[in-house]
Amino acid sequence: MDNGKFSTLLATVREKRPLVHHITNYVTVHDCANVTLCIGGAPVMAHAREEVAEMVSMAGALVLNIGTLDHAQVESMLAAGMKANDRGIPVILDPVGAGATRLRTETANALLHKLHISVLKGNAGEVAVLAGAEGKVRGVDSDGVKGDPAEIARKLADKLGIVVAMSGPTDIVTDGMRTLLVDNGHPMMGKVSGTGCMAASLTGAFAAVTHDHVTSTAAALASLGLAGEQAVSGCSGPASYKIALLDEVYRLTPEDLHKGAKIRET
Amino acid sequence: MDNGKFSTLLATVREKRPLVHHITNYVTVHDCANVTLCIGGAPVMAHAREEVAEMVSMAGALVLNIGTLDHAQVESMLAAGMKANDRGIPVILDPVGAGATRLRTETANALLHKLHISVLKGNAGEVAVLAGAEGKVRGVDSDGVKGDPAEIARKLADKLGIVVAMSGPTDIVTDGMRTLLVDNGHPMMGKVSGTGCMAASLTGAFAAVTHDHVTSTAAALASLGLAGEQAVSGCSGPASYKIALLDEVYRLTPEDLHKGAKIRET
Amino acid sequence: MDNGKFSTLLATVREKRPLVHHITNYVTVHDCANVTLCIGGAPVMAHAREEVAEMVSMAGALVLNIGTLDHAQVESMLAAGMKANDRGIPVILDPVGAGATRLRTETANALLHKLHISVLKGNAGEVAVLAGAEGKVRGVDSDGVKGDPAEIARKLADKLGIVVAMSGPTDIVTDGMRTLLVDNGHPMMGKVSGTGCMAASLTGAFAAVTHDHVTSTAAALASLGLAGEQAVSGCSGPASYKIALLDEVYRLTPEDLHKGAKIRET
Repeated sequence: MDNGKFSTLLATVREKRPLVHHITNYVTVHDCANVTLCIGGAPVMAHAREEVAEMVSMAGALVLNIGTLDHAQVESMLAAGMKANDRGIPVILDPVGAGATRLRTETANALLHKLHISVLKGNAGEVAVLAGAEGKVRGVDSDGVKGDPAEIARKLADKLGIVVAMSGPTDIVTDGMRTLLVDNGHPMMGKVSGTGCMAASLTGAFAAVTHDHVTSTAAALASLGLAGEQAVSGCSGPASYKIALLDEVYRLTPEDLHKGAKIRET
Repeated sequence: MDNGKFSTLLATVREKRPLVHHITNYVTVHDCANVTLCIGGAPVMAHAREEVAEMVSMAGALVLNIGTLDHAQVESMLAAGMKANDRGIPVILDPVGAGATRLRTETANALLHKLHISVLKGNAGEVAVLAGAEGKVRGVDSDGVKGDPAEIARKLADKLGIVVAMSGPTDIVTDGMRTLLVDNGHPMMGKVSGTGCMAASLTGAFAAVTHDHVTSTAAALASLGLAGEQAVSGCSGPASYKIALLDEVYRLTPEDLHKGAKIRET
Repeated sequence: MDNGKFSTLLATVREKRPLVHHITNYVTVHDCANVTLCIGGAPVMAHAREEVAEMVSMAGALVLNIGTLDHAQVESMLAAGMKANDRGIPVILDPVGAGATRLRTETANALLHKLHISVLKGNAGEVAVLAGAEGKVRGVDSDGVKGDPAEIARKLADKLGIVVAMSGPTDIVTDGMRTLLVDNGHPMMGKVSGTGCMAASLTGAFAAVTHDHVTSTAAALASLGLAGEQAVSGCSGPASYKIALLDEVYRLTPEDLHKGAKIRET
């Protein structure tokens, strides 16, 4: 597949420096801020009900991540999401732990149905649960799904009219009609906290610069995955690996992505 | 002392991958998540009153850390702790800053008395304050105790029927009858934030795989301390030291622990 | 300029180990804690309304950072700030994102007017907005000001009777009469999150050991900037740069600062 459109998007992110407003968890928020900076975006975190609508109005994308949700935070997600919808600003949802507790499943569903979500990015278990298929989620980890993951993702995308990105050894990105598979990545990415959250942040940064969110999401996931491949050499464990991963996202050039993205259409 | 039972516990943690539910502070939460992953466990952070009982039900251990407590968080700690008690899931309490403010002292005491805590892990000042002995706590640091630390820990353990772990150059782990001393560690561990919190996370991961919490706590503290010794070579300051510490926790094998644990019974 | 008084302050921070109470954002709080440790201070983070007055009473300085503010947090900032004012403990304000939303601008102004702030430390856009001059703030980044930055800072300092520190390629520190310019630093500091917040933490640590807050603030900013210069060699991107930056703050000696501080009076 010609990688030109993916590498062009990376160049555009670097040029436009989109502001990515996050309402996210306090575990990996630092990683989200830094990966957004490394890809060339500008992160801002703001959750107060009184300011989220105003803050998101100047953003290029909104990332909602329910990793450490509570009632007040979800209210702010809805307020920010509605304003983003009004303004045509893409909204990314990372339904961390959907399926693990009723609160997480119901919140993810509420956000999916009350807002227009541009891209839902979750692991296989989370996406399956939200699709009404059989998926298992233990804490914040997928414990597998029953059935064909790509089919589950496609049906959910089709039903909701959104882009669904299901992360895994091969990431699946689909709007129900067009499906891209991303083979970049490295098993070490599963050994550190925050790579899933970082993927959502990059999905936001790339979504800010195009209306084609299948392409932008695949470009984001390939960028992180390719950086993840390049980060392995010289690291001596998960912590030094995460440092190298962020450095490699910063060092990634459009040319690197053009050569190294492993994206195929099915 | 034969280190076989300690190294076996490490192997069991790696094999069972226990889910460790944390309700903890936002300063070192990222370290807690990553050290739990590095030792072989699965971290989850969740604090919403509506989900903590459900989340803890699938966990192997619950870690309560009052480093940045507030009213809502303490309510959730009580709810999660009561469910954990019902289910026989071990609860670890890290009473960060007890003695520094009345809120922290009272909260730690309330958690100790309303819940069945399996392991109380604090610095010398914090444990002394909770034992009703003379201890000084400045911010979140121990400023020393009056009297014999081991005796203070033993009496508190005996009185409450719990395991008390008092961290220091030599860690003291006791249930009032049996006392283990752990000599692993390195002064650099005091130069970075979060090593105390990480110790509580590992105490949770090890407590999830056995009912003998004197042994599991000593194994956890020896593991972190041994990794701390190994992390020194090649680091150039506290920040690179913390990265190396996490990497070394990941690289630590049961064989390493068998050879390197410095645990003695008194 | 003779750097003796700046290097002496660093030696005093190392000797006295001031407790720096932070009420700050959850994005960079970990950096704030670690940089405070690295310079030789003792960080404590506490935000509960019930304990902030008690906690700040034992502190050498209070750092208020509105990077992820909400209503409850601002109430606690006011309570802590009033107690600090009563006790003569210096209060540092970092008005993160003032100018980006009405909540941030109004909150920063409220803190400036209801409390006696010792040092206001912000980027050019934030300071200009609070000075009533034309400044642009996008998310948490300055997008430039209209007029002479030093003049804007001086007028605001004079009007409020405080020290104003405006960060930039050249940092401006002024009480309205005396103005110091700090030329230390490196462009990589703008590629990572948290360097502005870390500057506020160090400003707090240095403010704790002297009543001359023009000198102490310049010493703090020169220390961070000099560490930032020394951190560049050998780093391979922003993440490894931040690790090296913290290590270099730890390694910085009074002699280094005496030789390397680039501070001039205008």
